[in-house]
Amino acid sequence: MLFPSLLLSAAAFAGTAAAQGVSTYVNPAVPTGTPIPANYTGPLRPQVHYSPPTGFMNDPNGMFYLNGVFHLYYQYNPTGLGAGNQHWGHATSKDGYTWGNQPIALFPPEEKQYVFSGSVVVDANNTSGFFPNQTNGVVAVFTLARYNEDGSGGPQTQAIAYSHDEGYTFQYYDRNPVINSTSSQFRDPKVIRYEDHWAMVVAYSQEFVVGIFTSTDLKQWTWASNFTNHGLLGAQYECPNIVKMPVRDRDSGAVVDEKYVITLSAQPGAPLGGSITQYFIGDFNGTHFSTLDAATRLTDFAKDNYAAQFFYGVEGNPISIGWASNWQYAQQVPTGNNEGWRSAMTLPRASYLTKAAPRIGWTMVDEIYDTAPILGESLATKTMGNGSVTVDYADVASNALYIEANVTGIDVAKATAFSTLNLTFTSPASGESLRSGFYFGGDNPFFVDRGQLRGFDNVFFTDKFSVADVYYDSSADKTASWRVQAVIDRSMYEVFLDGGRHAGTVLLYPTQPLTMVNVAARDLPAGARVSVAVWSLKSTWAGQADEQGTVLGNVTTTTSKRHMVYEGGFST
Amino acid sequence: MLFPSLLLSAAAFAGTAAAQGVSTYVNPAVPTGTPIPANYTGPLRPQVHYSPPTGFMNDPNGMFYLNGVFHLYYQYNPTGLGAGNQHWGHATSKDGYTWGNQPIALFPPEEKQYVFSGSVVVDANNTSGFFPNQTNGVVAVFTLARYNEDGSGGPQTQAIAYSHDEGYTFQYYDRNPVINSTSSQFRDPKVIRYEDHWAMVVAYSQEFVVGIFTSTDLKQWTWASNFTNHGLLGAQYECPNIVKMPVRDRDSGAVVDEKYVITLSAQPGAPLGGSITQYFIGDFNGTHFSTLDAATRLTDFAKDNYAAQFFYGVEGNPISIGWASNWQYAQQVPTGNNEGWRSAMTLPRASYLTKAAPRIGWTMVDEIYDTAPILGESLATKTMGNGSVTVDYADVASNALYIEANVTGIDVAKATAFSTLNLTFTSPASGESLRSGFYFGGDNPFFVDRGQLRGFDNVFFTDKFSVADVYYDSSADKTASWRVQAVIDRSMYEVFLDGGRHAGTVLLYPTQPLTMVNVAARDLPAGARVSVAVWSLKSTWAGQADEQGTVLGNVTTTTSKRHMVYEGGFST
Repeated sequence: MLFPSLLLSAAAFAGTAAAQGVSTYVNPAVPTGTPIPANYTGPLRPQVHYSPPTGFMNDPNGMFYLNGVFHLYYQYNPTGLGAGNQHWGHATSKDGYTWGNQPIALFPPEEKQYVFSGSVVVDANNTSGFFPNQTNGVVAVFTLARYNEDGSGGPQTQAIAYSHDEGYTFQYYDRNPVINSTSSQFRDPKVIRYEDHWAMVVAYSQEFVVGIFTSTDLKQWTWASNFTNHGLLGAQYECPNIVKMPVRDRDSGAVVDEKYVITLSAQPGAPLGGSITQYFIGDFNGTHFSTLDAATRLTDFAKDNYAAQFFYGVEGNPISIGWASNWQYAQQVPTGNNEGWRSAMTLPRASYLTKAAPRIGWTMVDEIYDTAPILGESLATKTMGNGSVTVDYADVASNALYIEANVTGIDVAKATAFSTLNLTFTSPASGESLRSGFYFGGDNPFFVDRGQLRGFDNVFFTDKFSVADVYYDSSADKTASWRVQAVIDRSMYEVFLDGGRHAGTVLLYPTQPLTMVNVAARDLPAGARVSVAVWSLKSTWAGQADEQGTVLGNVTTTTSKRHMVYEGGFST
Repeated sequence: MLFPSLLLSAAAFAGTAAAQGVSTYVNPAVPTGTPIPANYTGPLRPQVHYSPPTGFMNDPNGMFYLNGVFHLYYQYNPTGLGAGNQHWGHATSKDGYTWGNQPIALFPPEEKQYVFSGSVVVDANNTSGFFPNQTNGVVAVFTLARYNEDGSGGPQTQAIAYSHDEGYTFQYYDRNPVINSTSSQFRDPKVIRYEDHWAMVVAYSQEFVVGIFTSTDLKQWTWASNFTNHGLLGAQYECPNIVKMPVRDRDSGAVVDEKYVITLSAQPGAPLGGSITQYFIGDFNGTHFSTLDAATRLTDFAKDNYAAQFFYGVEGNPISIGWASNWQYAQQVPTGNNEGWRSAMTLPRASYLTKAAPRIGWTMVDEIYDTAPILGESLATKTMGNGSVTVDYADVASNALYIEANVTGIDVAKATAFSTLNLTFTSPASGESLRSGFYFGGDNPFFVDRGQLRGFDNVFFTDKFSVADVYYDSSADKTASWRVQAVIDRSMYEVFLDGGRHAGTVLLYPTQPLTMVNVAARDLPAGARVSVAVWSLKSTWAGQADEQGTVLGNVTTTTSKRHMVYEGGFST
C-alpha cells in the first residue's frame, strides 16, 4: 500500500529539456505537443468511461465547460504505472462520454516539482489581465509540490497558469506562487466565481482544514475563513470542491431554492478502507460556508470513487466526474501489467439537492448524465411481474451494457424479506459472477458483490458493498416505485438507485469477460410491475482507432485543436 | 435482510400466564425464575466472549457495576433464532469475561409489548422513593414497544422497573410510562448521574434526534435539549450513550482533563453496510451537550460491533461492551442452525480520551480490559527482528488465543511498503485462513480478511476491513513503536492496535476450526525489534459445565443470587 509520496523516490528524473517556449521541466520520456498513442481494446479497458492512453491516472483536475466542450484534465504519470512524475493530462468531449486525448497540458515548471491537483476557471471579464483581447481566457489554479532529494515532501504552494487557446496549452504565470507556503500538506485548490470575486477552497490536508480564500484577479489571494474538522477525517483531507446547487422539489422536480455543497475527499482511513468522498450542504456568502446540520453524507456507497470535481461553467444541475479507484489498490490493479494503464474516471453525474422523505432528509441526488450519445442497440425489453430476463451479450463488441429496471405498483406493506430484484452478470467461460440486487422488504438494502470474480487478489479489495435505499409510498394509491440504472463496462460497474439518490462505483476484475446478464424479480407483492430494458453501449474508442487499433488522439496543430473534439456516436 | 420489526408478525404469542408476583406477560415457552440450560461446546461458540444460552441476543442493556459485580442484560428472544419476543436476558461477572447466566430479568408487562433496550442506575440515595431502607437499589429505564395485530409498530414509551436485590429481579413501576409517546420510533434510554440530577439520552430514531431529559426522581422527566443530525445518519439512530471520560496525556497517561462522549449507533445504511457506532467528544452541562468539533469518529473499524453501552458505576476509565454482530446478517449466521444460538457480545473495553499526534487529534482509545483472568498457558514467546513464529494450537481445548506483538525501534523513514507484520490463522484440515496484518510504510493500514473462510455465504458478509493506523516517532531516538493485541475465539476475532487507538471486531465462520497461527515480520528496517507472545485462553464456560457439558447457570434462590457470581479462573 503506497501513499503516493512514498513512491516519488522511485520516479525517474532523467532529463532537463524545456518544453517549447515555456520554461518547464520535461522528462525526455514524456511527449510534448502531441497526444500519447494508445490501444483501448484490452478486455479490461472501459469503453464508455475515460481512461488515460497509457500510464497512471488519478484525480480529475481543472474541469470546465466552454463553447460546448467539456475539458477534463487529470493527475497523470505518463512514465509509470503508479503515482509519481505528476503532470496534467487532458481530454475533451462534447457529450461527456466520448473523449478525445489531447497533448499533456501542464508539465512541471522545474525539476523536483510536480503539478498536483487544481481547477480551471474561465476569466471572461479578464480580471486577471492575461486576456486583453478575448472573453474565453482560461486560468488553471493548482498546487506545485516540491520534493527533496530523498523523495520526502517539500513545500506545496498554489500557482496559476493561463491559456489563450481555451485550455489546450498553458503558460505559467511568472510570479508564482500565488499562495505561498512552507507546508508539505497544502493543496488542491478549487476556484469558483461568487458574484464580484473569485473564491477558492483548498486543503490544509493533515490539519483537517479547508481554507477559503478570495481574489479579484486570481493572482492576489486573501484568506477569508476556515471550514475545519468536519465529517470523517481519515488521515488527511484532499480535493475540496465548492459548488452552487439547485434544490428541487422531490415530486415535481421544480427548483425551489439553491444551496452550496462542499465535497471533501479523505484518505487514508475511510470506513470502507482507503479513500472516500463526503459532502456537506450549507450556505456560502462568498467568504464563509456554514452547514445546514452536522451530518456526514457520502457521495458513493462503494469504495471506488474519489476526488470528484464539478465542471466550471455548467448551468443547471452541476456535473461532476470522479476518479474511479481507491488508493488502497489503485497502483496494483491488473490493468497495469495486463494492458499498460491504470485508473479510469467515473461516468459524469448531474447533481441536485432535495429534501427527501422524513427518513432520508437532505440528499444530493446524482443522476447519471444523459446516456443517449452512447446507447447502442436495444437487446431486450420486457414488462413483467415476477420473472426474469436473460441476455447473452457475448456478441456486443464493446462488452458494455446499460440496464434499466423500473418497478412500480409496489405495495410496501406486503413486500417481504424475499422480495428482490437481482442483476447478475456471469462469465460462462470461467464461472465467475458479479452479483447485485435490491431487497424491497426489511432494510431496503441494495448490494453489489464482486467477490465471485478471481482476477485480482489484494487484501484491501473489499468484495461487498451495500446501501439502505429506503423507499416510500409516493403515489396516490399508496404504492411505491423503485428504479435502478446500471452501466457495466468491462472492469467497471456503476449503479444509480432511484434516479441517483444513491450511486455506487465498483471496479471488477474477472479473469474472463462477463457476457451474460440476468435480471430477475422474485416474490414481489401482487400488483408490482417490472419494466426491464437492456441496451448495448457503443464503444467511444473504437471509432477513433486506426486499422491497428491505435487511438492517436488529437494530433493536429495547436491552433486548430479546439475544433478537434470528437463528436461521439461511434459504432459498437 | 430483516429489519427486526418485520419479524414480529412471525413471533409466537401462545400464552397469557403471569410471572410470579408481577403482572407480566409470560410466553409459556419462556422459563421464569431459572436460567436457561445451555451447551457452550459447539465449535463456533466463543469461550471468552458472552453469548446467550440459546436463542437470539442483540443489544447489551442495563449494564451496571455494583459491589464487585458486572451486570450485563441484553435484548433476548429466548424462543427463536431471530429478533422478536424481546426480553432482558441477564448475566453477571466479577472479571468482565467469566459470565454466569441468570434468570431472565425483564418480561413484557403485557402481551403485544416488548421490552426494548435501556439502562440501569444505582439509586444509592433513594431519589426514586423505591428504596427506603437500602443504598443498593437498582432502577432499570427502558423502552416498552407496543405492536399492532398486524405486526406493525405501535407507540414506544419509556418505562422503569426497580429491583431490591441488586438487579436479579425487577418490579414494574405501577405508573409507567415515565415518558409517554405516540411515536413508534422513540427508544433506548441511557441514564447517567450528573451532579444533583439524573440525565437521560434517548433516540427519536427516524428524526435523527437524541433527546436529553432530566429528572430528580427517575419518574418525572423533563425535556432539556436535543442533539440532532450529527454524523452518519444511516436510516435511523439507536442506542445513544453519554459518559464522562478522562482525558489522558498521550505520553504519560496522566489524567489532564475530562470530557463527555456521546456514542450513537445507526442502522441500516452504515458505510460498511448495515449497522455502525460513532462517537462525539464534547462538553455536557447536565442539560446540553456540545461537541468539540464537527467530526464523525467510529468506535470500530470492522462491521461487527453495534450498540455498545457503558457500565454504570465504574470509576476511572469507563468500561463498555457491544453487540458483536450486524443487522445485515445477525439473523442468518450459521451458529443458529448449527448450535442453536445467535450473537455474542464483544470483549469489555476500557476507554479514555487523548489528543494524539497532529494527524490523529482527538481520539477515544479503547483498551482491551484486563485479560489476566482468562490467560492460560504461554504457548510461545519470541523476540526477533524479521522472522516468524508459528503455533499449532489444535490441542488448546478452548480453541481461543491471546496474541500480542510489540514492535519497537522502527526507523519510520526507512519503513517501506513491504515492511509488514502479519497474523495469519489457518485450518490445516480445510485449507481456510484468516489473514490480518499491518503495513509499516505507506498509509499504515491494518487489515483483516475473512474472505478465505467458507462457512457462511451471504451477500452482506463483507470480507475485508482496514484502518489507517498512522504511527509516529515517540521516542527520544526518533524511532517509533507499534503494538497489536488480538483475541481469536472460535468464531470471533478482536484486535486492538496501539493499545486501543483503533479496535476491530470481526465475526468469522470457518468450516473447520482454525488451529494454526503464524506471526511474521518481514522487511522491517534494521533495528526494529518484534516481541511476540502467544497465550492460550481459558474457557470461561467449561468450568461451569456438568458432565453432560450443560451449563445450568445460577439455579439458586433469588435471595442468594447476588452471591452466586462465578469467580473465573476455569481451566482451558
